[in-house]
Amino acid sequence: MINLLEIKNPAFLKTLSNKELKELASEIREFLIRSIAQTGGHLSSNLGVVELTIALYYVFDYEKDKILFDVGHQAYVHKILTGRAKEFSTLRQYQGLSGYINRFESEYDIWESGHSSTSISAMAGMLLSNTVPLPNHVISVIGDSSITNGIALEGLNFLGQFQTLAPIIILNDNKMGISKSVGALSKAFVKLRNSWLNRSLKATLNKILPACLTRCFHRLKRGIKGFIQQDNIFEDMGFDYYGPYDGNDLIYCIKVLNKIKNTKKPVIIHFLTKKGKGYTPSEMDEIGNYHGVSPFDVVTGKPMIQRASNELNISKLVSQYLVEQRKKREFFVVTPAMKVGAELEEFAKLYPSDFYDVGIAEEHGAVMAAGMAISKKDVVLLMYSTFSQRAYDQILNDISRQNLKVIIGLDRAGIVGEDGSTHQGIYDVSMLMGMPNIKICMPKDAQETIGLFNYAFEEVDSPIVIRYPRGTYKITQPLDYTYRCDFSWEQLYQGHKINVISYGPDVLILSSIAASLDINLYNARGIKPMDEKMLAKIFDNELPILVIEQVVSSGTLYHKILEFKEKNHFRSSVFLHGFHCDTILPHGSVAEVSDAFGFSKEQFIQKIEEILQETKCVNEK
Amino acid sequence: MINLLEIKNPAFLKTLSNKELKELASEIREFLIRSIAQTGGHLSSNLGVVELTIALYYVFDYEKDKILFDVGHQAYVHKILTGRAKEFSTLRQYQGLSGYINRFESEYDIWESGHSSTSISAMAGMLLSNTVPLPNHVISVIGDSSITNGIALEGLNFLGQFQTLAPIIILNDNKMGISKSVGALSKAFVKLRNSWLNRSLKATLNKILPACLTRCFHRLKRGIKGFIQQDNIFEDMGFDYYGPYDGNDLIYCIKVLNKIKNTKKPVIIHFLTKKGKGYTPSEMDEIGNYHGVSPFDVVTGKPMIQRASNELNISKLVSQYLVEQRKKREFFVVTPAMKVGAELEEFAKLYPSDFYDVGIAEEHGAVMAAGMAISKKDVVLLMYSTFSQRAYDQILNDISRQNLKVIIGLDRAGIVGEDGSTHQGIYDVSMLMGMPNIKICMPKDAQETIGLFNYAFEEVDSPIVIRYPRGTYKITQPLDYTYRCDFSWEQLYQGHKINVISYGPDVLILSSIAASLDINLYNARGIKPMDEKMLAKIFDNELPILVIEQVVSSGTLYHKILEFKEKNHFRSSVFLHGFHCDTILPHGSVAEVSDAFGFSKEQFIQKIEEILQETKCVNEK
Repeated sequence: MINLLEIKNPAFLKTLSNKELKELASEIREFLIRSIAQTGGHLSSNLGVVELTIALYYVFDYEKDKILFDVGHQAYVHKILTGRAKEFSTLRQYQGLSGYINRFESEYDIWESGHSSTSISAMAGMLLSNTVPLPNHVISVIGDSSITNGIALEGLNFLGQFQTLAPIIILNDNKMGISKSVGALSKAFVKLRNSWLNRSLKATLNKILPACLTRCFHRLKRGIKGFIQQDNIFEDMGFDYYGPYDGNDLIYCIKVLNKIKNTKKPVIIHFLTKKGKGYTPSEMDEIGNYHGVSPFDVVTGKPMIQRASNELNISKLVSQYLVEQRKKREFFVVTPAMKVGAELEEFAKLYPSDFYDVGIAEEHGAVMAAGMAISKKDVVLLMYSTFSQRAYDQILNDISRQNLKVIIGLDRAGIVGEDGSTHQGIYDVSMLMGMPNIKICMPKDAQETIGLFNYAFEEVDSPIVIRYPRGTYKITQPLDYTYRCDFSWEQLYQGHKINVISYGPDVLILSSIAASLDINLYNARGIKPMDEKMLAKIFDNELPILVIEQVVSSGTLYHKILEFKEKNHFRSSVFLHGFHCDTILPHGSVAEVSDAFGFSKEQFIQKIEEILQETKCVNEK
Repeated sequence: MINLLEIKNPAFLKTLSNKELKELASEIREFLIRSIAQTGGHLSSNLGVVELTIALYYVFDYEKDKILFDVGHQAYVHKILTGRAKEFSTLRQYQGLSGYINRFESEYDIWESGHSSTSISAMAGMLLSNTVPLPNHVISVIGDSSITNGIALEGLNFLGQFQTLAPIIILNDNKMGISKSVGALSKAFVKLRNSWLNRSLKATLNKILPACLTRCFHRLKRGIKGFIQQDNIFEDMGFDYYGPYDGNDLIYCIKVLNKIKNTKKPVIIHFLTKKGKGYTPSEMDEIGNYHGVSPFDVVTGKPMIQRASNELNISKLVSQYLVEQRKKREFFVVTPAMKVGAELEEFAKLYPSDFYDVGIAEEHGAVMAAGMAISKKDVVLLMYSTFSQRAYDQILNDISRQNLKVIIGLDRAGIVGEDGSTHQGIYDVSMLMGMPNIKICMPKDAQETIGLFNYAFEEVDSPIVIRYPRGTYKITQPLDYTYRCDFSWEQLYQGHKINVISYGPDVLILSSIAASLDINLYNARGIKPMDEKMLAKIFDNELPILVIEQVVSSGTLYHKILEFKEKNHFRSSVFLHGFHCDTILPHGSVAEVSDAFGFSKEQFIQKIEEILQETKCVNEK
């Protein structure tokens, strides 16, 4: 029995017997279930790669070889084997262990693949710059959903040219990605999985035949394959393809990796792993509910924290709205791999021919939405704010420049919480403000979310972005699905000391302190264009103006208000409470990170009092 | 003999005999050579697709089917056949015929694929929204370089799932892309080209066999192929693959298209075309010099306008600098398909193992550069400003967030000229300003370009962007390759009426009017971070400040200066001369577009005089 907490690095693996290796796998699996049940985190994908990760560190040299995990959320076993088991109680918590690869956390965290599919391109850079000279290796461990993204395909296409660099790509095929893999290639994977000599037969043969015969058999098999069977996409891309192998058979994984690792050609080794392996509720999960979990009860598999009955998840709100709206009018929903994340299962089930999950392919999704819009069809493109960054050029060039009406729903706008620095939704406003024709807004609550979506459907004839944060809304009265609002700003409290302008749910926090601080509070739900009439009125009272926006403030509301002030010769001082462009927001709960970076009630009070103090001093001078 | 100028639409094609069709092809080819020799434009790619385009319009229904050209610069023949021959004398000129697909120019211009590889995703949107119901067709004509871009691969992967939508993809394979295609897939194309029944044999057989036998032979051949030959990537993606066929054999193209068009499955039809076909200098061009040409002498193939001997192309300057710098230190150059455009042939020839043209794969290129930088190797990533938009997420997430030193050279920053609205280099500053750690600058002339690159190599340890425009610099004295400057701002003239702050070559224009207008002129070569010490001094004189920046002003220098003013309670009025985010800059020469949109000497004078008038009035009040 290994004490996981005492592991410093993977060196000990080589001293273990087969039996001990298998015991270690069980132990790690139990540790993961127990630990993630406490903290929440990415469960299924990590349970699936226990054996594969142990095998990788058994076969490769952890000091000289470099293993890149793509995406990073499948790297928990790697974290355990590189000495971080003892930190798992802090997983994804503020100042605790990151849920992704983090270069500042460990020298064995090589590449931060927070957004998927970058590992092949990164390894190309590492190999070409000869950081890891042969006979040592760079290995990318990439999921079946990640490998169909455009960058990964570009990376394969590029790297396949360099036959002598010997990149090793481990295709971790759990047949699901976050939920089910989509696209023709995933069907090609099925073909590979079902190839004529099925993998269990192969495994058995490999087990019973002596090594020399196995090699001989392997050559024969490949010879026959080459004659009878079809080539596959990876071979077209310049890679020797091996597999599929059972990635949950530890000893077999080790054999396979040992055999192939010195091929000295670009290779793809295709392993089939079982997502959620070893934990029944997670194994049975076809949808992806156990992909990322909150703390849960190990016995029942149910979440520990039940949502209060009057709280509605914001993604769920939007998806419910879309279901309601679809009853009234026809439109498409396009989403890049966010069917589960954006809670769109119900819409997909009710309107399968109007729903397109395009997989991890934001660029394609955005252009496809433009293609629908150009055909005068309504289309809603739903993405996380952070992943919309992948479609900058397509939103700019294909949607905005062509002035095509695509309703873009940006989920998880603002502080994203546990996913950390690679996933923050704080760039989209800065990214979108410079684009032509596009409208941008952020509702403060559930009813306004519906109101702005209705406005988008009914009144707008240009691209429009509706952004909303991760989290829940309190629902205090029944939602009115016919309610419509527009971009006009709303005065929420008439105070006398300072004007505060904000957007999104932060205005609700501000609302709760408006009376006590005597602030004049505005909900700037329309960010582009701004409500200039209201803004002029706000300047008229000559009180200081504080702009609170939970984004990197570059070209965003603060700058637009300064520009308005300058052009109209207004006098009020304008203060900003946002993120400086150099801010890197870490992981932690939304509440913790919000508090640490200035977006809690207390911080708002403090900021407002500071400004009142400062302006008082200036006035007194 | 058809009078090309009288063509209204492609309807007449169906009345032509084979002989007349071929004559038409010759005529169009001659017209293109003659016309492009006068105006400049995309020569080689259009000469290559004469027969293919005629065949497409012969076979398909121009009123009901939709043909998408990807990229748009191969659509000249399409423009002629849809009634625009008479406008070719205005090609790419201000208010003249666009060099790309333009939806406002013609109802037959379906999709503006200015940035490559979007047509497959767009056709997916059109097909799914049933704009063109079967039995009519949506056809994408896509080049061999464009199809290896990530979006195109994502699009194929997606669309291949929908077997009943029957998309038709015409792979126009001229074996070059802009210069030579790169990547493993281009090798796979070679394999396809050389497949066991070579295309001339096939063509001959198809010509001599009666139709029924041809079909029978075709089935037999495919049967044998399926057994002996390998599958290819397109079949893995769910497409039936046909080809390769001779795309310059007009009558044969028509036969092939007629046979395949009603397959009712997703199909890829692979045509080999000869780039530059029919014009010897262009046919002989292996590099891509005849891809986009200036007006030239038809007999010699030489450009009509010779560059003045003291004028140095700015791309050439940078590439010369890199060659010089490489003599002193080791570094990599990575560029996505801009080897010719960025004049990097010499560097590539001298240092082949330090030079990587990754093809049209900006995302991959940026991440690969990050992979090199993480290995502590110097790397220069060279792209056009407009194409850097494709790598927003990678520059933000992989380069900037990780604070990796990649020197990003952004070519064609600012007004781009004849390529028009899809290619303007006016977004990059807005796009980059909100990113962490990254430095941004723009030199005013050749010597400063060298100075800032030397600064980047020698002094900077973070990502840095050096942007420079399309065009030439006057070289009045020998360049000093050891000169280094930094981000500090430079006062170019000490005047008394107004402060003018600008960056890039616009400051040279301003310099020429500084004395006569009595302006206090500053070269703000460092944009992020700004030279705040100098800026504070500028505010001290309390003269109005005019910020001139040839970009969409969203989060750019103007906003940063307003922020600085606000935070430091300065009083000077700050004026902006830039582009509003809703500006769509059209095509035309750089000079014409600059003049029309406020970036000529006369416009600068006018703007400054307006401000002086305005501030005078305000002061007098």
